[in-house]
Amino acid sequence: MEAESQMREVKYAADISSIREAQARIKPFVHQTPVLSSESLNALAGRQLFFKCECFQKGGAFKFRGACNAVFSLDDDQAVKGVVTHSSGNHAAALSLAAKLRGIPAYIVIPKNAPKCKVENVIRYGGQVIWSEPTMQSRESTAAKVLQETGAVLLHPYNDRRIISGQGTISLELLEQQVPQLDTIIVPISGGGLISGVALAAKSINPAIRVLAAEPEGANDAAQSKAAGRIITLPETNTVADGLRAFLGDLTWPVVRDLVDGIITVEDKEIIHAMKLCYEILKVVVEPSGAIGLAAVLSDSFKKNSAWKDCSNIGIILSGGNVDLGILWDAYRK
Amino acid sequence: MEAESQMREVKYAADISSIREAQARIKPFVHQTPVLSSESLNALAGRQLFFKCECFQKGGAFKFRGACNAVFSLDDDQAVKGVVTHSSGNHAAALSLAAKLRGIPAYIVIPKNAPKCKVENVIRYGGQVIWSEPTMQSRESTAAKVLQETGAVLLHPYNDRRIISGQGTISLELLEQQVPQLDTIIVPISGGGLISGVALAAKSINPAIRVLAAEPEGANDAAQSKAAGRIITLPETNTVADGLRAFLGDLTWPVVRDLVDGIITVEDKEIIHAMKLCYEILKVVVEPSGAIGLAAVLSDSFKKNSAWKDCSNIGIILSGGNVDLGILWDAYRK
Repeated sequence: MEAESQMREVKYAADISSIREAQARIKPFVHQTPVLSSESLNALAGRQLFFKCECFQKGGAFKFRGACNAVFSLDDDQAVKGVVTHSSGNHAAALSLAAKLRGIPAYIVIPKNAPKCKVENVIRYGGQVIWSEPTMQSRESTAAKVLQETGAVLLHPYNDRRIISGQGTISLELLEQQVPQLDTIIVPISGGGLISGVALAAKSINPAIRVLAAEPEGANDAAQSKAAGRIITLPETNTVADGLRAFLGDLTWPVVRDLVDGIITVEDKEIIHAMKLCYEILKVVVEPSGAIGLAAVLSDSFKKNSAWKDCSNIGIILSGGNVDLGILWDAYRK
Repeated sequence: MEAESQMREVKYAADISSIREAQARIKPFVHQTPVLSSESLNALAGRQLFFKCECFQKGGAFKFRGACNAVFSLDDDQAVKGVVTHSSGNHAAALSLAAKLRGIPAYIVIPKNAPKCKVENVIRYGGQVIWSEPTMQSRESTAAKVLQETGAVLLHPYNDRRIISGQGTISLELLEQQVPQLDTIIVPISGGGLISGVALAAKSINPAIRVLAAEPEGANDAAQSKAAGRIITLPETNTVADGLRAFLGDLTWPVVRDLVDGIITVEDKEIIHAMKLCYEILKVVVEPSGAIGLAAVLSDSFKKNSAWKDCSNIGIILSGGNVDLGILWDAYRK
């Protein structure tokens, strides 16, 4: 396998050892999330689908795995001044919760356009909110200022060995659960922390497994990066999937470049349709970013691509479920 | 234990043997549903809560367990002419699916006010819909007519040994899953099929376990029946929980009378609030009837009742997740 030989030659930011260490470290704190399946969705996809429900993870998203690993990796001396991050939401809530469990402060820089429910999660878990403009530049400069003032440790949402290793524990868990042998895993891609961890662990256990990314058309920097052979960033993004607007980092890009077998881009309307199917058929609350793996497997670009015709048993990571549902409740109350 | 001695003396419609037989019979067809927990909800309740997610069952509700047991209990000679039932929805879909798996017809009498999504499930699973007026009398007379015309077997939604035994498999599964020893199980009550099966199995395994019913104020026939010591029916019901409008039957009433330790009635606004918590915190899609167990445990009448102060580890059955979500999607599309 080409990917396998590359894994031996290139040193990536994380590896199966760091991921297994993360699994042991976070085990007392994380939920082992269930895998659900639906014959109705299998029929729609023409494949067997196995949904790894990270929306049931603490904080409502997979992000708690990485945040927990990072926070509990810190020496006591490092930890005491707290942690800082900038995040559109799920990493922020996850880091707040992990810091709370360790008993240290969490300073969270949040862009002003973050979904309300994600900000509420940060506050619920005791994180201290510092607002920034909704640009990566403003997020980073605001975080730098907080760092200087507090002496806390910066924990980047994805471009960090500890974070990537924590997210990789999803693969270990999924491949140990009672599902048929998976030949493919489909993973939402944003900054690449999740898919890097998942690919590094999954391909270490089974080098033949395919790892595919699902990305919104309106934030298709990863697809463009793969095509160009270098990191491409976009002047702006436009997608309903608020969790998938970040760009690849220098630690995640090499993994995406070498170990991700393909990127399936989908339109927002496909994401919304998949989200609807998750609610109506799986009975699982997902946010748009969380539904994109199902959108990918149902898309024409996946179904008609001969490269994926042998993808029969597919693991799909439902990455998170933090979504504002106020309108539903208003309707119910009437 | 009083309940235990009563179980030995009185012959109920089902027992641990019929429930274990049901478990073996339906095992190839049903999902083993996961148990979820949330520290946020534990904090709200002041107890440890374990949510048995029957909304993830095939057909979106626990009803498939009973329907599957009944359909696969039939002799070939009985089965060939098909099955008939009248149901506001979840039993109807469940029976349609079970009949489809056995390759026999299902004739479903549905009241005109049944939720759209429940009717769609019947049609999706190949059930033949026959409409009735939304009264129990019209449901029963229409079903009798279909019976006469088809020679099919009537499978009552709850007042049936095979149905009760199938629903009881939830207790077997829940008490075998990796949760702390439960001292209490809270179960939605309507016609009593679910709670009868759950109580018979759970108290056979652990006679000390408490089984509590959760019932809407606007359809509180079970609470009234317990108080009166005989089956009470209501001239009409008025609740958002469309699955909880049926009345106890002659097979379920003795179990409810003897083995159900208490009935907690809640208002519709409490059900809606609990439903919201299921979506926002558990990330699970429940219908109003499915959320009533959480509503009960959070209610003042439960919290302030000294009889329940020792209920520490509580299993809550999230019975179903079939709910019309059209309004949410309209809002998203805009």
